[in-house]
Amino acid sequence: MRTTIKKTIFPTIFYLLKYKLDKIHSMKIETNIAHFTTPLYLESGRILEPYKIAYETYGELNKDASNVILICHALSGSAHAAGLHEGERKAGWWDRLIGDGKAIDTTKYFVISTNVIGSCFGSTGPMDNDYPKLTPFRLKFPVITIKDMIKAQKQLLSSLGIHHLKAIIGGSMGGMQALQFAVDYPNFADKIIALATTYATQPWAIAFNKVAMEAIRRDPRFQNGNYEKGAFREKGLDGLAIGRIAGHISYLSPDSMNSKFGRNYVNNDGLFELFGRYEVERYMEYNTNNFSKIFDPLSYLYIVKAINTFNLSRGYDSLHEAILRIKAEVTLISFKGDYLFFPKEMEHIHRMMQRNGQNSSYYEIDSNYGHDAFLVEIEKFDTIIKDKLNML
Amino acid sequence: MRTTIKKTIFPTIFYLLKYKLDKIHSMKIETNIAHFTTPLYLESGRILEPYKIAYETYGELNKDASNVILICHALSGSAHAAGLHEGERKAGWWDRLIGDGKAIDTTKYFVISTNVIGSCFGSTGPMDNDYPKLTPFRLKFPVITIKDMIKAQKQLLSSLGIHHLKAIIGGSMGGMQALQFAVDYPNFADKIIALATTYATQPWAIAFNKVAMEAIRRDPRFQNGNYEKGAFREKGLDGLAIGRIAGHISYLSPDSMNSKFGRNYVNNDGLFELFGRYEVERYMEYNTNNFSKIFDPLSYLYIVKAINTFNLSRGYDSLHEAILRIKAEVTLISFKGDYLFFPKEMEHIHRMMQRNGQNSSYYEIDSNYGHDAFLVEIEKFDTIIKDKLNML
Repeated sequence: MRTTIKKTIFPTIFYLLKYKLDKIHSMKIETNIAHFTTPLYLESGRILEPYKIAYETYGELNKDASNVILICHALSGSAHAAGLHEGERKAGWWDRLIGDGKAIDTTKYFVISTNVIGSCFGSTGPMDNDYPKLTPFRLKFPVITIKDMIKAQKQLLSSLGIHHLKAIIGGSMGGMQALQFAVDYPNFADKIIALATTYATQPWAIAFNKVAMEAIRRDPRFQNGNYEKGAFREKGLDGLAIGRIAGHISYLSPDSMNSKFGRNYVNNDGLFELFGRYEVERYMEYNTNNFSKIFDPLSYLYIVKAINTFNLSRGYDSLHEAILRIKAEVTLISFKGDYLFFPKEMEHIHRMMQRNGQNSSYYEIDSNYGHDAFLVEIEKFDTIIKDKLNML
Repeated sequence: MRTTIKKTIFPTIFYLLKYKLDKIHSMKIETNIAHFTTPLYLESGRILEPYKIAYETYGELNKDASNVILICHALSGSAHAAGLHEGERKAGWWDRLIGDGKAIDTTKYFVISTNVIGSCFGSTGPMDNDYPKLTPFRLKFPVITIKDMIKAQKQLLSSLGIHHLKAIIGGSMGGMQALQFAVDYPNFADKIIALATTYATQPWAIAFNKVAMEAIRRDPRFQNGNYEKGAFREKGLDGLAIGRIAGHISYLSPDSMNSKFGRNYVNNDGLFELFGRYEVERYMEYNTNNFSKIFDPLSYLYIVKAINTFNLSRGYDSLHEAILRIKAEVTLISFKGDYLFFPKEMEHIHRMMQRNGQNSSYYEIDSNYGHDAFLVEIEKFDTIIKDKLNML
């Protein structure tokens, strides 16, 4: 009798307590939208006007606006990096890193996180209206690059009266933005912390993105971008789910899959049933089907394109020339098991900076989580970030 | 004037000469079909009856049938491993390895190459009639395993009066068959040569296959397997093409893609066009679109399933017990850049055999071609095969 009570009540209490603690530990926050009527001149030569940027802030801006940290998100991210929205149970995507007393300490710093243009979480993207028309851009949306994303972020910061940053921090595509900031606006931030990223997207990563691009384009329900808003809320777009499976392969690694799934088979799926599944297959299905209901497929195409075209050297004579422009202190954090952006790609930046006598440090974290480690294994790198931010 | 002539005529002559030489160097061969009316008892408990096996032979069988080598193909392969079919310009998939005076020397050996059951190149597969019905099996085709494939091959060999083999050689899924032969029928072959393969398919490879399985299943034109025969001859099945892109990622490697494509952009594709392409993207499109017209999507699902379920230990107490059964001399050839079946997987077999005092040797070929190396970089391992075959 007693054990039964224990088994049923204790986990419930534990869960409620944990939920409560999460709520206390995580700030209650909201996403803001900033509207801009000035033109945003894009790298392609095209113009975005008007445009809007979704953003969140955590902590307090100090008097001389000298405690600002910008957070940049990855492919599927949003401005919601930390804290809890009203009624929400799951905190922002880097909540374990950002908050009061955490590595990115919101008692000290004013943290801004924005949604990149092209995305579908509040900033202007392909499903927004092509002003002055009352219909969405769809495939007429201009191609966006990482350079464009940071230009838009800089506009937002200006509008908030912020003209200098303490630090810019991001992983994966967020790391691309951080590095692009360092190159394009050398005096803008004191410190750059880039995780699990590269100096230019390599064909291996482009090939993974190709699966998504083709799967989305060829899905009849995509209708060449002419689907209705919210068309995939009930039944996600298969093309996006399929592309996302390829994505998930690149976010994990052979070792992480071995330890996470092994060759385990889903219970009740027959081994000799054609569509019986291994655990790794169930994981892929579960994660990607949900994702394909939430994420806009046009935004996915545009952001993937931005990742593909990322190349720090574009617009400069060479990668060396681009890197040479950097004045910030650069911290590069890679993960041993990263099969999307391999550690040697970030080491390449570090070596270049070292040869130039620039201020850089490189960390290769021993991790089994693959590319995802920058979102998962916070405890393996949060002290590095804390120390780098606290150093004068 | 002279240079113009040179430029136009010389390549033509060179090409004709090369074509001629290819024709002379490659045997003229045909694919045979063997029909079996006896039941094939499958690992699933189901029965295939009747069934047929497509096969080719190269060289002459000696009097005591002691010079036979069996060749096993990979996922998309066929019985056509060497020589030229009538009117054909491109020789079989391992033609550089198999032929008169080549590593697998057809002046010495009688070489047999079969199409695996489940495939779509002559052996019984899902689009064959579900006897006695006059309609294809489609999704009612039984799940086939590597064990089943080799059982069928053994039946074919028996019917040809061949009860012992000099060697069994295969790469990738062909290597799985070779190893499965060594375990299931320890006295059947003297030598086993397995390339670019594993002892059990790992979740990393299963995940790549998952892209193909989902992309095919969710393609509306697949119609849950109820498409008409030849339905994709004109316009290939998108789902298969998309799945094949994921496949090609796993057949290459980051390094091979870097040296093959780099970040080169297709001429005339605009960098700021959403669907403008990098060279790596063009490669993926070209190879996969053609493939999706030729290969049957149901066969693809069934063969991928056979690869997923491959596990040398199934049916035995452990991998150790399975390996311990091997009596043949085993040669394991892996490739450094293989990102589908990593070298350490074959090394694992070798170490086990060494600990058991069994006869094995392991080679890790320095290659930049990824998994594809076993089909491409013949010159890097053909002498190993030649030496192993010629050794008493």
